[in-house]
Amino acid sequence: MSVNEIRKDFPLLENQKVIYLDTAATSQKPACVLEAEREFYEKYNANPLRGLYELGEAATEKYEEARETVREFLNAKEAAEIIFVRNATEGLNLVAYSFGSLVLKPGDEILVSIMEHHSNLLPWQQAAARTGAVVKYLECAEDGKYTEEAFKEALSDRTKIVAMTQVSNVLGCKNDIKRFAQLAHEAGAYFVADGAQSVPHMAVDVQDLNVDFLAFSGHKMYAPMGIGVLYAKRELLEQMPPFLCGGEMIDSVSRTGAVWAEVPHKFEAGTVNGAGAYALAEAIRYVQKIGFDFIEEREAKLTKLLMDGMKEIPAVHILGSQKAEDHHGIVTFKLDGVHPHDVASVLDADHIAVRAGHHCAQPLLQHLRVLSTTRVSLGVYNTEEEIQAFLTSLAGIRRQMGYGE
Amino acid sequence: MSVNEIRKDFPLLENQKVIYLDTAATSQKPACVLEAEREFYEKYNANPLRGLYELGEAATEKYEEARETVREFLNAKEAAEIIFVRNATEGLNLVAYSFGSLVLKPGDEILVSIMEHHSNLLPWQQAAARTGAVVKYLECAEDGKYTEEAFKEALSDRTKIVAMTQVSNVLGCKNDIKRFAQLAHEAGAYFVADGAQSVPHMAVDVQDLNVDFLAFSGHKMYAPMGIGVLYAKRELLEQMPPFLCGGEMIDSVSRTGAVWAEVPHKFEAGTVNGAGAYALAEAIRYVQKIGFDFIEEREAKLTKLLMDGMKEIPAVHILGSQKAEDHHGIVTFKLDGVHPHDVASVLDADHIAVRAGHHCAQPLLQHLRVLSTTRVSLGVYNTEEEIQAFLTSLAGIRRQMGYGE
Repeated sequence: MSVNEIRKDFPLLENQKVIYLDTAATSQKPACVLEAEREFYEKYNANPLRGLYELGEAATEKYEEARETVREFLNAKEAAEIIFVRNATEGLNLVAYSFGSLVLKPGDEILVSIMEHHSNLLPWQQAAARTGAVVKYLECAEDGKYTEEAFKEALSDRTKIVAMTQVSNVLGCKNDIKRFAQLAHEAGAYFVADGAQSVPHMAVDVQDLNVDFLAFSGHKMYAPMGIGVLYAKRELLEQMPPFLCGGEMIDSVSRTGAVWAEVPHKFEAGTVNGAGAYALAEAIRYVQKIGFDFIEEREAKLTKLLMDGMKEIPAVHILGSQKAEDHHGIVTFKLDGVHPHDVASVLDADHIAVRAGHHCAQPLLQHLRVLSTTRVSLGVYNTEEEIQAFLTSLAGIRRQMGYGE
Repeated sequence: MSVNEIRKDFPLLENQKVIYLDTAATSQKPACVLEAEREFYEKYNANPLRGLYELGEAATEKYEEARETVREFLNAKEAAEIIFVRNATEGLNLVAYSFGSLVLKPGDEILVSIMEHHSNLLPWQQAAARTGAVVKYLECAEDGKYTEEAFKEALSDRTKIVAMTQVSNVLGCKNDIKRFAQLAHEAGAYFVADGAQSVPHMAVDVQDLNVDFLAFSGHKMYAPMGIGVLYAKRELLEQMPPFLCGGEMIDSVSRTGAVWAEVPHKFEAGTVNGAGAYALAEAIRYVQKIGFDFIEEREAKLTKLLMDGMKEIPAVHILGSQKAEDHHGIVTFKLDGVHPHDVASVLDADHIAVRAGHHCAQPLLQHLRVLSTTRVSLGVYNTEEEIQAFLTSLAGIRRQMGYGE
């Protein structure tokens, strides 16, 4: 396995002159995934879960096989614990609406980690507003660390839900959600994990982590847009009311109400994205073929190269931990005197794609007292040469902006 | 333009031995749409609305161009009135949650047409349960007709919302939603239209219809799964609270709340399905190239051939109107003494794909006193030969099931 071989799998990287360092926003897609999506439409296309004919049964079979592929990938106990959603955002909203309405009472507390992406923060603010619960924030240190002591202190006997990401989309740090979920459970709270930045980059075992919910997006993991996954424990799904209502999520409907279908279908209203699920399963096989050992080793190596280089450039300040091993392929920084939008624009002139802004994590940036930053994030296809090109470009920005150094 | 030419556009119909008569569930996809989706990933893939780099700007441009294509297709006043959703179901749920929470008060009435698909019925039952409003049903005649008198009588000064499909997914009848929306408005109510079965088959002009909301699914209109549209009047969208919360639907976020982004982005939380929107725009161009004149003429011709043939088969009973011009490519029937699942299975043995069951419209079937039925539905690719093959197969079913005739 070599990165040069891997790069050939990605048509966009072959076609376009771009150094793509924005995989945390969305990944590029390998040809096998694009072919899988097309194959579904060319061979199996019908409305899954509905048709009593050969094609309909094939569509259903491919869709449910994809669910099983995800189950095995996350090591969920059973396929019914895998809900196909559009993306992590929808999955987390589903939990906040449905599970929130089930368990939250006025005065209850939702403990939200301050580094959450807006998608695991705003739904909790809204759930609190609907139910009379209160959002409390867990503060991280400058290096992004949450201590057990601070976590325990933040829990109270009113804490019903803890919301925490496994890997921060800004700081790149990895939270020990296994330990925090255990502490949450000991305090009688449920644990909702955002896996958007972890699932594509490391082996995630939901039984081992023992989280109650975990959401991730396909499009950040080499799969198409429009498909994602919510993992949830079956006993919780069974108690939860449905979120979206429509076709195929019912057992029966009358003028006055409905009997809901069994899980997972209770949570999959309307026509499902069968082709998206099929392509996501192919993306999972692609990642598994490369292997997380390889992926983690490569990302660690490139992250170190990146951070070592950045530290040598004057006026660059890396957010969070200064240790490369704490960053998991995501490095966010400030460049003194240059607005991140200008940083991104200058890099873009060298065909380097990075993300500038608040990264959908404004409360974290407020906590860290920065307004806007620039983020580099890595995928399986990035090379040492790309990192060097980025470093060279970055090193020249202040000079280009008129600073004499 | 000939149907034989059109058929060549659909790889599945070329590859698979199937007579596909289930387009109302989901359509087959032309190669140009599949190529468009792939093209997005191979040329423009980045996270739309976020990246300040060339590729990100291309992704945003393609996404917003798709919105403009939809706007022009529906003749909406402005692109901001086009919200990309996963499918019609999500669009209707969005309206019921967000607009429902805005306008419904205890005792208010939601008038739901009895022929609604569950996706335009269950969300209103749920909105009623959340707000204390009451769902009332508008009864149709045996032929599926709603009279103006019955409609006016069903409206009251408590009616806040009317929910009605433009074309029934069971009866195939077309409701005069322009007139009913006018009557609803005169009574001070808002009008929510389900366009899932109309938008793919006839020109729909939302300004002319003057409905407040209209949802449709891409996958029923030759586009991929996982993309759909909610049209809504801008002045309503601006007053409505967001539905899903997450990235890019905010202007700013603090620990205590958020300022929402402008429409349409307020309603598009998380990573959007850029490739899906791009492929939907291609599907719209495909439909426009064929033209609704051709589509309606073909569907009318085939529907007549189908119904004339069915009427000659003993023991076949067509639901709703007995006139072909009332059916718009959808014909649902009972066959005396044979369960619809068996009808579908026997037809499947002849490689004919039809839908059997309650078609996600149980209250309508209860109203018409039938439990389960079989549905034939047409697309641009169906031929006279396919209809004949269906009729021949249908004519033999009772004999195969042991009835001596």
